[in-house]
Amino acid sequence: MDAKQKKILGEFKKLGARIETKGRVKLKTKQDIALFYTPGVGVASTHLAAHPEDARAYSVKKNSVAVISDGSAVLGLGNIGPYGALPVMEGKALIFKDMANIDAWPIVLDTQDTDEIVRTIIAIAPGWGGINLEDFYAPRCFEIEKRLVEALDIPVMHDDQHGTAIVVLAGLINAAKVVKKNFKNLKVVISGAGAAGVAITKLLKAAGITDIIITDRSGVINEGRTDLNDVKRELAEISNPRAVSGDLMDALIDADAFVGVSGPGTVTKDHIKVMGKKPIVFALANPVPEILPEEAKAGGAYIIATGRSDFPNQINNALVFPGMFRGALDKGIRRITEDTKLRAAKALAALVTNPTVGKIIPDVLDKRVVPSVAKAVR
Amino acid sequence: MDAKQKKILGEFKKLGARIETKGRVKLKTKQDIALFYTPGVGVASTHLAAHPEDARAYSVKKNSVAVISDGSAVLGLGNIGPYGALPVMEGKALIFKDMANIDAWPIVLDTQDTDEIVRTIIAIAPGWGGINLEDFYAPRCFEIEKRLVEALDIPVMHDDQHGTAIVVLAGLINAAKVVKKNFKNLKVVISGAGAAGVAITKLLKAAGITDIIITDRSGVINEGRTDLNDVKRELAEISNPRAVSGDLMDALIDADAFVGVSGPGTVTKDHIKVMGKKPIVFALANPVPEILPEEAKAGGAYIIATGRSDFPNQINNALVFPGMFRGALDKGIRRITEDTKLRAAKALAALVTNPTVGKIIPDVLDKRVVPSVAKAVR
Repeated sequence: MDAKQKKILGEFKKLGARIETKGRVKLKTKQDIALFYTPGVGVASTHLAAHPEDARAYSVKKNSVAVISDGSAVLGLGNIGPYGALPVMEGKALIFKDMANIDAWPIVLDTQDTDEIVRTIIAIAPGWGGINLEDFYAPRCFEIEKRLVEALDIPVMHDDQHGTAIVVLAGLINAAKVVKKNFKNLKVVISGAGAAGVAITKLLKAAGITDIIITDRSGVINEGRTDLNDVKRELAEISNPRAVSGDLMDALIDADAFVGVSGPGTVTKDHIKVMGKKPIVFALANPVPEILPEEAKAGGAYIIATGRSDFPNQINNALVFPGMFRGALDKGIRRITEDTKLRAAKALAALVTNPTVGKIIPDVLDKRVVPSVAKAVR
Repeated sequence: MDAKQKKILGEFKKLGARIETKGRVKLKTKQDIALFYTPGVGVASTHLAAHPEDARAYSVKKNSVAVISDGSAVLGLGNIGPYGALPVMEGKALIFKDMANIDAWPIVLDTQDTDEIVRTIIAIAPGWGGINLEDFYAPRCFEIEKRLVEALDIPVMHDDQHGTAIVVLAGLINAAKVVKKNFKNLKVVISGAGAAGVAITKLLKAAGITDIIITDRSGVINEGRTDLNDVKRELAEISNPRAVSGDLMDALIDADAFVGVSGPGTVTKDHIKVMGKKPIVFALANPVPEILPEEAKAGGAYIIATGRSDFPNQINNALVFPGMFRGALDKGIRRITEDTKLRAAKALAALVTNPTVGKIIPDVLDKRVVPSVAKAVR
C-alpha cells in the first residue's frame, strides 16, 4: 500500500461510516413516544396488516432502497466477498442520499449460492421500496435479477448491467452527433460479455443499432463457437450480423465505436488504427481502462470516454441509478422496462445540448441529472 | 377506527417514514467522489477483503443494528405479518437513534419458517454490528435466537425476551426494597410462558430468586403436566419448588409478586386478595394490562407497574435495548450473556436512589439510562 492509499484508508477509518440514520421526529416527551412508538404505532400496524399495499404511504418503504451485493464481482477487484464489498455498497448508499434523497442502506450477503441469494432477497423485501443489485458476477447475475423481478412487486435493478448500459447509450447518442454519423448505422464492437457487455448489447439493439459484435477472451462471439454458455449463445444469435470471426482486431476493422467493459491491457493503439473514420473509444474498465486516453489518441481515436473522473467524458453509473430509483419511488413504478431505460438514456444525452469531443455526457455533479432521469422514468 | 386513531394514522401518513438515512460526508466536488466513492473506495474494499475483522472500523458495521421481525407476535396484535410489523420495527429504529445514536434499520421478513429465518439473517449479517430480534412468536423464538447466537460473531438479542426480563428484574429489585422484603426470598408468580415469561423466569433465577411459579392458559406449569412442549417442560423442571398445582389463583396464595406477561382479563382483584402482604403487581400486557391499576389497588396491590406510559412505573423495553447495544457496539462485545443482563438490570435499578411505591424504575426519558446500561454491558 502506497502513501496515497494509506491516506485514503485513514480517511475511511476517521469517518467510521459514511452513512448513518436520522430520526425524522424527536422523542422529547412521553407524548412523542406514545404517538410514534407504543401505543400509537399499533394503529399504523393494524392498518398495514389489513392493507399491506399502503406500506409505502406509512413507512420507510416510501423512500428506501437496499443496495445488495454478494461481493462476487467488485469493481476491478473481483470476487472479494461481503466485507470487501461493504465499502462500495455504503458508498452507493451515500450517493443515493446525497444526489437523490433516497434512504439506501448496504446489505452484503454471506452466500454466493444463486438460490439462497434469491430466497434471501425475497425474504427481506417487504420493507424496501426498491432493490439495487450490485457486483454479482456473470452469468449468475442475469438469473438472480430475472427471478427477483418476477417475484417482487418493487423495482429491482442490477446496476452493473443497466446503469452502465444506459450511460453508454447516452454517450454513444452524443458521440454519433459529434462524428456526424447516423446513430443506428454505427458499427459497434463490445469487448467483454459479462454483466455490462450483455446489457449494453441488448440496450443498443433496443435503441436501433443493428451491427454489434461482442468479443470475450476467446475472440469474437459468433454462432460457430462451441464453447458458449447460455447467455453467450443468446448473444451470438442477436449480434454479429456480418458473421465476423477471429479476434478483437478482426472485429474492429472499420468499426465506428469500441466499448470496452472487460479489463486493462486488452486494447492497443494498433487496434484503434484498424477502426473506421473518427473512431469512438469507450474504455470503461475501472480503475485501469482497456487503453489509456493518450495511447488511444495515438492510435487515432477521435472521441474517448473512460470510467474515471480524472479524464474527460466519464461514463459513470452515478449518472443513472439515483434518478432511476427516484423516479420509480416517486411514481410507485414496479418494473424498470427496456423502454424506461431508453428514455433515461435519451434524457441524459439531451442534457448536453452541444456535444463536443470533450463533452458527450453530463457531469456527475450536474444538478439537472437526477431530476431529468427521474422524469424520464415516470 | 375512532377519531383518535384516525388522527394518529394521519400523523404517520404525513410523516411518511419516521427514520431516514443521512450522509456523513457531502459530495460537493469530483475529489469528494473520488475519495469516498470510486476509486477511493477500492482501497477500503481491498483492505477489508484481506482483513474482514476490520469491517467495524471502516464501515457502517461500526454502529449498525438490524431490527428484524417476521411479524408473528406483534405487540398485542398477534400474527399480523411483515407489513403490520414494519411500523413497530421502524419505531424501534427511531428509538435506537434518538436515545443511543445507533444506526438501526427495520428489516421485516416475508417468511415464518424457522430454518429460512435463520438462513436469511445469517446471510445478511456481515454488514451489521448487531441484530435485534423482535416479535417472533414462542416457542420458535427460542430456537431462532439460539441458532443465530451460535452462528454469528455479533450480538444477537431477542428483545421481547431479554429486554423485558431485564426491566422486570430491575423493577423487582426496587419493589422488594419498598416493601422491605429480601429480594431472593420473594415468591414470584409469572402468568404467561411465552417469550417474556421464559426469559423472566431464567433471569430471576440467575438473580437468586428460587420460588417462581409460572402459569399458562391451562394453569400452573408443573412436572405433572403432560401437555407441555419442550420449553415448558424445561420451565417445569427449573420452577415451582413447592410443587403447586391448580390455576393462577392457587399459585398466587401468599405470593409476594405477580408478573403478568400474558394478556388482558386474566387477573381480577380477587386474585390479588390471596397474595401475601404488600403485593407487588406487574401487569405488563400492552396496551391493555392483565388488570388495570385501579382494580389491582382495590384488591390490595401495594406496588403496581404496567407497560403503559400513562400509569406510574412503566416497564418499558426502551429502558434496555438502546443502552445494551450501545455498550456492545462500543466494546465490540459478541455475546450478551446472563451476566451482562444481570449487570444491566442492577444498573437500571440503581438509578432510582430512593424507590417508592410510585417510582421503582427510571423514566424512559431519563438521560442517565442509556449510558448506565451501556456501561454495565462493558
